Amino acid sequence: MEKINIAEKMSLFDDHWVPRIVGELNGQFVKVVKLKGAYDRHHHAGEDEMFLVVKGRFRLELPGRTVELEEGEFFIVPRGIEHRPVAEEEVQVLLFEPASTLNTGNVRTERTLERLEWI
Amino acid sequence: MEKINIAEKMSLFDDHWVPRIVGELNGQFVKVVKLKGAYDRHHHAGEDEMFLVVKGRFRLELPGRTVELEEGEFFIVPRGIEHRPVAEEEVQVLLFEPASTLNTGNVRTERTLERLEWI
Repeated sequence: MEKINIAEKMSLFDDHWVPRIVGELNGQFVKVVKLKGAYDRHHHAGEDEMFLVVKGRFRLELPGRTVELEEGEFFIVPRGIEHRPVAEEEVQVLLFEPASTLNTGNVRTERTLERLEWI
Repeated sequence: MEKINIAEKMSLFDDHWVPRIVGELNGQFVKVVKLKGAYDRHHHAGEDEMFLVVKGRFRLELPGRTVELEEGEFFIVPRGIEHRPVAEEEVQVLLFEPASTLNTGNVRTERTLERLEWI
């Protein structure tokens, strides 16, 4: 039960697309992640997913439209909705999602992580 | 399914201690609130509560200790733990908690809100 400084947690890693867990509440995880480049299009069948931009900007490609997200903005991708994050430059993002959420959703790729690290 | 700009939502109200709902995911609400002054000490029997400082600073008085929270920091108050937020100056906070959470927890006061507004 300690306070979490988000910038400090972000300083602990440099890689992209590897979320780290920084908090848990009510069966949900709070995660930090750095994104750069284009991710795999995927969805999460039973889980809504929230992306909150801490630093930088990126876009979420959704069915039929694209949402541009900047610092201080968030977007909730409802369960079942295909999405593809794309970051031209590195972006720092806070994620909120159920503890059960797999990072690549319904798709298994070399980016799929079976187990996330707490930092 | 629109993006949310947190600063924009914060600009829509001036009162203190009245959370507004700005998002919902997995049975949890995302809320924005402005705090100023000292709140009632309370706990939530079955719900963990997350406080994320968007702007300003405040302190959370907990059993036997006090946590000072600044911009970019968050704290998760586990269910059942007594807490009392105190803000010397106005602070803008993002809250994450189950949709069922009552703002004053186990205590009913003139600040108790039976129903929160979506903005």
